[in-house]
Order: sequence, then C-alpha cells, then structure tokens
Amino acid sequence: MRNIRLILSYDGTDFSGWQYQPDARTVQGAVEEALGVLLAGPVRIGGSGRTDAGVHALGQVANFRTDSRIECRALLRGLNALLPPDVRALLVDEVPDSFDARRSAILRTYRYLIYTGLVVSPFLARYAWHIPAPLDGDMMNRSGRHLVGTHDFASFAASGDETTTTVRDVVSFDVKQTGGGVLQIEIAANAFLRHMVRSIVGTVVRVGSGKMCVEEFDEIIRARDRSRAGMTAPPQGLFLVEVLYP
Amino acid sequence: MRNIRLILSYDGTDFSGWQYQPDARTVQGAVEEALGVLLAGPVRIGGSGRTDAGVHALGQVANFRTDSRIECRALLRGLNALLPPDVRALLVDEVPDSFDARRSAILRTYRYLIYTGLVVSPFLARYAWHIPAPLDGDMMNRSGRHLVGTHDFASFAASGDETTTTVRDVVSFDVKQTGGGVLQIEIAANAFLRHMVRSIVGTVVRVGSGKMCVEEFDEIIRARDRSRAGMTAPPQGLFLVEVLYP
Repeated sequence: MRNIRLILSYDGTDFSGWQYQPDARTVQGAVEEALGVLLAGPVRIGGSGRTDAGVHALGQVANFRTDSRIECRALLRGLNALLPPDVRALLVDEVPDSFDARRSAILRTYRYLIYTGLVVSPFLARYAWHIPAPLDGDMMNRSGRHLVGTHDFASFAASGDETTTTVRDVVSFDVKQTGGGVLQIEIAANAFLRHMVRSIVGTVVRVGSGKMCVEEFDEIIRARDRSRAGMTAPPQGLFLVEVLYP
Repeated sequence: MRNIRLILSYDGTDFSGWQYQPDARTVQGAVEEALGVLLAGPVRIGGSGRTDAGVHALGQVANFRTDSRIECRALLRGLNALLPPDVRALLVDEVPDSFDARRSAILRTYRYLIYTGLVVSPFLARYAWHIPAPLDGDMMNRSGRHLVGTHDFASFAASGDETTTTVRDVVSFDVKQTGGGVLQIEIAANAFLRHMVRSIVGTVVRVGSGKMCVEEFDEIIRARDRSRAGMTAPPQGLFLVEVLYP
C-alpha cells in the first residue's frame, strides 16, 4: 500500500476544527470527502494534530494509505478542484511506509497574531485577537524565555486533557511587532498540549499589559496548576505554521 | 441639522452589496441599523457610490443628517461596538451642510487583485481573482494608457445601466506585481459606471494573457459597445480604496 502525505492550508473561521465530526463542517471531513470521490471509496486521514474550531493552518500535515495508482500531481489538482476555497492542498507526495503525520513529527510551530490598534480592520478580524492597548513585547519575550526547555506545562493544559504526560520541549518563543499594530508571537515545540499555545498567549499578554511581572509568569509555569494561568486566548489569532519531520 | 460623515471599511464577502435591500444583508443596512440604535430613531445614509455584492472597501464614504448632539467620538465607538466585525467605522466627523458623499466626490480609486499562482491560498481566495497563468503587466499597463483621459466608456458599462451619460474622466491606471504572485491593478476616475472597473479588468486581462493586442483594446474603448469587451471580472478581487473630496 502507498503512504501519501498531504500538506494543507486552511482558514479555520468556518470550520468546527480539524477533527472529523459526523454533523459538523470539519477540515478532516472536507478532505476525506474530496479524497473519497477521487479514490472512489472511503479514506481516513491522520493529521499531525488537531486544531480547534476557528484555528487556521498554513502547513498542516496529514497522511493516508491507498492502493490507488493515481499520481500525486493528479491528486493535488483533483483535491483543489473538489475542496471548498477555505482549504487548499499545497503538496501531495508519497512517503515511506513508516511515516505517520502525528507520531513522526519532531517540531511544530504555531503563530499567534494580536492587533493592538483601536479599530480592527474587517480584513484582520478573522485572523487576530483584538486587544486595543499597547503591549510590551520586550517583557513578553523575557517571560517567554522561561518557557524554553523541557518543562511540565500542566499550568497551560486544557482541563480534561487526557494526555498521560504534560511534559513538553519548547524550542523557541519569540514576540515581535510586525507593523500595522500587529504583534506576532511564534512558539515551537516537539508537541503541544490541548489549548497550550492559547493559554500561554492569554497569560503572556498579562505580562505585556503590565498586569503580571516576569517572575509571576515563571511561578505559574512551575506551579503546574491550570487555575494559575491567564485566560485561553481566542482561536482566530492562532495559525499552525509548519510541522517538521526528521 | 448636523451633517455627519462616515469613513467605512468592509469585507464584502458576506454582504449582498452596499445598497439597502429589505431582505438581504447589506452594508448600508447594517450601518443604518447600528445608527438607528445609537440615535434612537431611523437614519438613512448616503454612500459615495454602490459597491456590488462581494466587493470590498478600505475607505467607503457616507453621510447622514441628524439633530442628535451625540459626539462624533462616541458615535465612532458606538458604531464599532454594534456593527458586525466585517464592517468598521474608521472615522466619524462633522462636515459642512453642503457635503454630499456622492455628489461632492471628485475622485474614486479602486484596486483589483489577481492571483496568478497555481494554488490560491485560503487566506487570499476571498480577496483576489484566481487566474493560474502568467499575465504580462507591461502589456496591461500599455493598454491602460488608452483608458486615461475623458472618454465615453459605454463599452465597459453594465447592460441596463440607466446613467444618462457614459463619459467619465479616468485619471490613472496602473498595474504592478506586488509579490507572492499577486498582480494589483489600480484605477482612479472622477466616477465609474456600474461594473466599469470589473469590465476593464476582464478585458485588460485578455491583453495580459496574450489573447488580445493593445490596438484591439483601444478599438474596444472607441467602439462604445459592451459586446466587444471581455468578461466582467468576479467581485471578490475588487476594493474601493478611497474617495477624495475638494
């Protein structure tokens, strides 16, 4: 059987997240439906991870197995002809049998956009969290340094997350002004807990707005207690940027 | 009575155009509804011009009259609190009684985006026309020079347009590559006929793709015959950029 990899980009606004649900519009469901037509039979794809409702992706990765001999180029063209315009296949290729989009992934990068101006453009409203107040990016970067490394991130896990371990390796954390009043936060890790990026953003924003100091932020990490962290930032500012493999 | 000017930005994707319709979601309808709440009574606004369903605006201008003493700053804040996120008020100010958003306007600038790459990003699909083929921007600019000046633009008028004259003053026409495979066309005129920008874009694209030469384009202008021009380009690539007043 062939093992086929997909790189997908989607605007998550009108999706109930990545994961298939029988009665909701999901990215996985849309891609499986299109593949089902192209391959003339049911297909189940596995993503690198689930993105929540409203979260976007620039480079989500998924794979599936098929006996079909249809060429990857034809699959790419066929997918983009059948998929709705808010999901695109950017690449389709054949990978070794051992490749698994979730388990083989070694690094995931997320980006979060915050708009700090007074009036958020209608062209940005779907893609950023609106906080109409200045945020101190330097202070946010200083707190972020405490995240980098291998830590127990229980303080930033969604309640009810059934993961066996809450230890993750955060490789980088970077905050920068990108112009036009948009603050961009990028964070890369081997893997993330459910809502982890959004909980980190919701907490680090408290540092940026002067409501929390860097030391308190560090204490929250060490407390391993979700009730200590800030709010979960809204989904529309979050983008899965890329997933790396060995 | 006070005469109040609004500068509005909207993502036209989910609107049935600017003009109020009793049973459809329109920009004028959304703004009038919000103003009706703020001013505690029915309000009728007049725009600089109508934009069609799916057409966007970075700076649409409108005005209305009111006896209310509510401050412009409060109106701005109130409007953005009540309006849906796909319309924003960027500015509210008081203008002389003689000001009329449509009749006082002396220059309107429109922008049209075309994506010429193979796969259009889901983040661009709402805001560009996808033509997956190279377009010769220099040739398009050369044809565009024939548009500049005072001409009868009947060849680019929508059928059924009841305007008394089809003569307009086109002040500038410019095509440029903006990077990332996006071609941008900007055109400014004292006023435009209905569908004029989209008909011009649909025709000039034929020059850019080598299906029409510059001389033929010039003949089409002079023919004053709608049946000679190219297709009407789709609405989602079109933005009303700004409207100027004396």
